[in-house]
Amino acid sequence: MGGKDINIYLEEKKEFIDQCLAEILRAYPKYPRVIHDAMEYTVMAGGKRIRPILFLATAEMLETGIEKSLGKIGCTLELVHTYSLIHDDLPALDNDDMRRNQPTCHIAYDEATAILTGNALLSLAFEVTADYGQEHNCPGKALALVGELARASGVEGMMGGQVLDLWAEGREISGEEIEEINNRKTGALIKAAVRMGGLVRGASHEQMNKLSKYGESLGHGFQIADDMLDLQGDSEKMGKSSGMDQARNKATYPLRFGAAKAMQRANDLYHDSLAALDSFGEEAVILRELSRLLIFRER
Amino acid sequence: MGGKDINIYLEEKKEFIDQCLAEILRAYPKYPRVIHDAMEYTVMAGGKRIRPILFLATAEMLETGIEKSLGKIGCTLELVHTYSLIHDDLPALDNDDMRRNQPTCHIAYDEATAILTGNALLSLAFEVTADYGQEHNCPGKALALVGELARASGVEGMMGGQVLDLWAEGREISGEEIEEINNRKTGALIKAAVRMGGLVRGASHEQMNKLSKYGESLGHGFQIADDMLDLQGDSEKMGKSSGMDQARNKATYPLRFGAAKAMQRANDLYHDSLAALDSFGEEAVILRELSRLLIFRER
Repeated sequence: MGGKDINIYLEEKKEFIDQCLAEILRAYPKYPRVIHDAMEYTVMAGGKRIRPILFLATAEMLETGIEKSLGKIGCTLELVHTYSLIHDDLPALDNDDMRRNQPTCHIAYDEATAILTGNALLSLAFEVTADYGQEHNCPGKALALVGELARASGVEGMMGGQVLDLWAEGREISGEEIEEINNRKTGALIKAAVRMGGLVRGASHEQMNKLSKYGESLGHGFQIADDMLDLQGDSEKMGKSSGMDQARNKATYPLRFGAAKAMQRANDLYHDSLAALDSFGEEAVILRELSRLLIFRER
Repeated sequence: MGGKDINIYLEEKKEFIDQCLAEILRAYPKYPRVIHDAMEYTVMAGGKRIRPILFLATAEMLETGIEKSLGKIGCTLELVHTYSLIHDDLPALDNDDMRRNQPTCHIAYDEATAILTGNALLSLAFEVTADYGQEHNCPGKALALVGELARASGVEGMMGGQVLDLWAEGREISGEEIEEINNRKTGALIKAAVRMGGLVRGASHEQMNKLSKYGESLGHGFQIADDMLDLQGDSEKMGKSSGMDQARNKATYPLRFGAAKAMQRANDLYHDSLAALDSFGEEAVILRELSRLLIFRER
């Protein structure tokens, strides 16, 4: 698959996910209006939908055909991701004013609404998953998805990572500690996206282990790429403030070890991610392309 | 059942729930330490455990015997309740310094930690439910519990109620609007507690409707009692600041209609809650007692 084809693939999947997201927001309660508006404002702001796409690509690698219902499960990852961004941008955390090329939720609304909107998105992700399991009569599968999403978003995953990230600001921490932060803060949800793709297809224990390995390498490589972009600083391309990690004395791989070593580490992680896909053969072509695009991306 | 017996019942169940909560916090990740400490600090501060007790009492009404695993499901309600209190106390929301007779989470730690700790408790509630379904091989039941908890904590329930509550501050709103706020902000989780008790026992559709009705009346009566206590203002008894509703111009039933009319409304709701229990006969004695205690409570 060439560069052109993968871009078409990404475009198509993004559009599909955007449709599913809009459908979810239409189907769930619209009152009170302000929280519904704030959910729509943040969710529909046009992210790259990387996590849902990783989920769909994994599911398609294992079995062709993507029904609308799987699109909605992909959306739960985007709901959780958006929730984490809304809270991360709050004054008490990163205090960011811009996100996805628009004012952040607490700027466009207010802090209280931003906190509650984030919360509502997390609950919504679980509600969508519960409804999926009931509508499609697959409670076991749906419950496994709930467990995956809960662990990825909780202390073991994103929340633990964010706390570690705050704790690390201004400290001299080791490479292992940086990897631990990255693995939880960013890696957990990316790994969950890939594993959820396996779960909906009833992947074997061995396949799930390979998918975990792929997700971990990709998640960490992705975070290094993000940190490199922040360092190089093109806020227009990124749709958010750049150069902020240095200003905040954040513990990132490139800031700690320099750009050259970070690039080397990212390259190693890229190859680790490919190795994890070996046993999936030709079917893994899109996951390989995604790894390359996400680790060596320019925005 | 006399007043003495119900107090023994409450004491025993509270102790059981406290044990289960401690076990949950022990079993789940303890790193990073600070978020684990903050979770323990807030969860183990010694609330009355009303929601888990309502859940257990409903389950016991339908079928005797309470296993430890059901205690953990009861705990999910307390985790969600504690999460809502932590966020509700934040400076951007109610800005409260004291809760359950100790400094609130953002005072004892900081705002960022309080936001993340609340979030982690919500994810943990779903994780515990997913684990319950897998360990006890009852994915359908567990998934129904997930749906119940997600709806009660989301836009339809608590989050929608909190947004409405903020919106109503300083406005002249109707009795219906106050009831809508109460039903969502407080009622949703109380109703979920009772319904979850029905779900774990495989209650019939008709029984679930009766339980919903009971939970709704109780939830609203409970909120009026809370607002009356705030008005009468004995912060020592309540373990939190009192008289704050008036200061904030909150839309509460007693503030809007006066104490006498609020008492009358609470009394009507008490009788509605009893009527909903009619078909359960003698077995409903504890739910009846709980309704009386919670609607006519003094602290």
